[in-house]
Amino acid sequence: MLRCRLRDAGRRHHDGGPRLGDGVTLTDEQRVDWLRLIRSENIGPRTFRELVNHFGGARAALDALPALARRGGAARPGRICPPDEAAAELKAARALGVQFVALGEPDYPLRLQMIDDAPPLLAVRGNRAVLARPLVAIVGSRNASAAGAKFAQSLARQLGEAGFGIVSGLARGIDAAAHHASLASGTVAVLAGGHQKLYPPEHAELAEAILEQGVTLSEMPLAWEPRARDFPRRNRLISGLSLGVVIVEAARRSGSLITARLAGEQGREVFAVPGNPLDPRAEGTNGLLKQGATLVTAAADVIAVLEPIMGRSIELPPAREPEPRAPPEAEPGDDERARIVGLLGPTPTSIDDLVRLSQSSPAVVRTVLLELEIAGRLERHGGALVSLL
Amino acid sequence: MLRCRLRDAGRRHHDGGPRLGDGVTLTDEQRVDWLRLIRSENIGPRTFRELVNHFGGARAALDALPALARRGGAARPGRICPPDEAAAELKAARALGVQFVALGEPDYPLRLQMIDDAPPLLAVRGNRAVLARPLVAIVGSRNASAAGAKFAQSLARQLGEAGFGIVSGLARGIDAAAHHASLASGTVAVLAGGHQKLYPPEHAELAEAILEQGVTLSEMPLAWEPRARDFPRRNRLISGLSLGVVIVEAARRSGSLITARLAGEQGREVFAVPGNPLDPRAEGTNGLLKQGATLVTAAADVIAVLEPIMGRSIELPPAREPEPRAPPEAEPGDDERARIVGLLGPTPTSIDDLVRLSQSSPAVVRTVLLELEIAGRLERHGGALVSLL
Repeated sequence: MLRCRLRDAGRRHHDGGPRLGDGVTLTDEQRVDWLRLIRSENIGPRTFRELVNHFGGARAALDALPALARRGGAARPGRICPPDEAAAELKAARALGVQFVALGEPDYPLRLQMIDDAPPLLAVRGNRAVLARPLVAIVGSRNASAAGAKFAQSLARQLGEAGFGIVSGLARGIDAAAHHASLASGTVAVLAGGHQKLYPPEHAELAEAILEQGVTLSEMPLAWEPRARDFPRRNRLISGLSLGVVIVEAARRSGSLITARLAGEQGREVFAVPGNPLDPRAEGTNGLLKQGATLVTAAADVIAVLEPIMGRSIELPPAREPEPRAPPEAEPGDDERARIVGLLGPTPTSIDDLVRLSQSSPAVVRTVLLELEIAGRLERHGGALVSLL
Repeated sequence: MLRCRLRDAGRRHHDGGPRLGDGVTLTDEQRVDWLRLIRSENIGPRTFRELVNHFGGARAALDALPALARRGGAARPGRICPPDEAAAELKAARALGVQFVALGEPDYPLRLQMIDDAPPLLAVRGNRAVLARPLVAIVGSRNASAAGAKFAQSLARQLGEAGFGIVSGLARGIDAAAHHASLASGTVAVLAGGHQKLYPPEHAELAEAILEQGVTLSEMPLAWEPRARDFPRRNRLISGLSLGVVIVEAARRSGSLITARLAGEQGREVFAVPGNPLDPRAEGTNGLLKQGATLVTAAADVIAVLEPIMGRSIELPPAREPEPRAPPEAEPGDDERARIVGLLGPTPTSIDDLVRLSQSSPAVVRTVLLELEIAGRLERHGGALVSLL
């Protein structure tokens, strides 16, 4: 996993200036560039990071995109977000009381910063102080049982009183119960769509109430209508923000289990509330318990596990010297590019294997992958695996 | 823990004859002596074993009882079961189809034989073949929920079909559900009272049905009316017979949790069925899960743990030479006896400490303890601890 700090064009434009990840804030100009880059086609959080590291900043990466896409064999050039569109989004956000917090800025949630695919920009609305608190997620079935909702409420209230911010997904059922019970202490609703497209719509009032002591938070454009696939993507933020995730009720193949899996991959604690084996809403949670999740029947069970972790300072990845810009010899030749592309297929392959089999340098392989990605031809999986689309 | 094999007077009366524990059966005469000894006042399974080992057999122990009680300082001599009473019980048992199986006999359940306080005689009624099968206990609340009872049934049926005999306590609720569902495959009801005093009385029909493919089993006299304290005592047989114990529903301080604790002490597997934290009938089982019990939502969870154990042959304790009769010098003098008694009090003390502090030989200490016990002045606890009553 690549967990290097981002450096930005800022370093190039303002020689000797502070680097990102050191707790300094972006300039307005940089923020527009960051927003343009992450809103451009085929650019996800990982590609964003690769590009900024490779080119030394968002502006330089934007400038390089057309050439990269062409070399990656794009059928048509990917859409690059124009400056006025980004500026308009920033303006609309301000009007709505939404602030964009950039990876590495002091307000960016520290634990979220640790994940592989942390969003470069988080659109945050409300009382941001909650994000500095120790956070714990409570998630579960949309069609929760009365007992499940009641339990989620009592757990959220008690953990809130114990000083935790409660993270959830604003969904019906368990999520809503967890938010409701932690309105006073502070709660974080992570949205799958944009701030202007709350889902489900009937939770608009709940979302407003959350802003008093907590926040709503999204990585998507303000007007983004959430699609089915945005929910699992969103779930990585729920777990990534939190010290641990409590799954209250979950059927066999539910979104909550995706959150649990992501939590495990991110090294977060996974908690599950047991249920009667004949209750289909307990199938998922009982399954998690069999796999080693911590059994929760009371807030104390969660606190007992998280308290020792809270005390510990967050393990920041070792500070690295920023990688130098790829030297000229790292630019792949056409043969080399063709050889690397030839090694790829629909089956996920590790980048290490590509380096070994292509006999190219890691820098060259990385460049070719970046080109393919920007051309919309590459999919990145977890564990440094890639496949051709 | 004393896990030596029993030897009996048989060896003295029939010189060179086979020893108990070698899979041979008692003579009729010996069975009367065994029954008399275990039915005598202040003689529990552990004392029985001590006495038979000390005196070389039940008959010799019976002969020695009055003198032992006197030396132990009995206020009044403990009642010794007369021969005709034992003979009458054996006759009544035969009429009822109840057979007494002695510890060490081929029909005595092998795993039960391994426990510290295995009953010297088991009164067994029904189809004894079930006792040779791998056994698993299913126990739980008397006031079971519909879901709990249904789960117990499905578990018992599936484990029965997988070849396990199902052990339980004939109680209302979970126990009855487990027996009912395993009538066809074979089930073992362990009684807290005697065979003539089934509890609860409304389960007489269920008990009859059990006899077809299974057994009812008791260590108590045929006409023994079960008292409250006989139930936890009985529970050690439920766990002792079984490879593992599944607790289906259990409130915070329930008898099922006693069975679970005993199972743990006996080295048996402990399984628990999860339940909603708001359901008081799940408090006990969820608590067991927190303590490391295996979570069960299906028969496969039980089989996965027990199958490897079944394959393994039972670890019999290493065969020991029978201890010689206590040599004359092991008989304690009055001063020595007084010194050992003086070290005892209401707080449980380890026998090792007594030996050390009294500076008497282990044989002498054991003799004094035996005398006190037979005099009704000593209580034995687990882990070789004793206290004065």
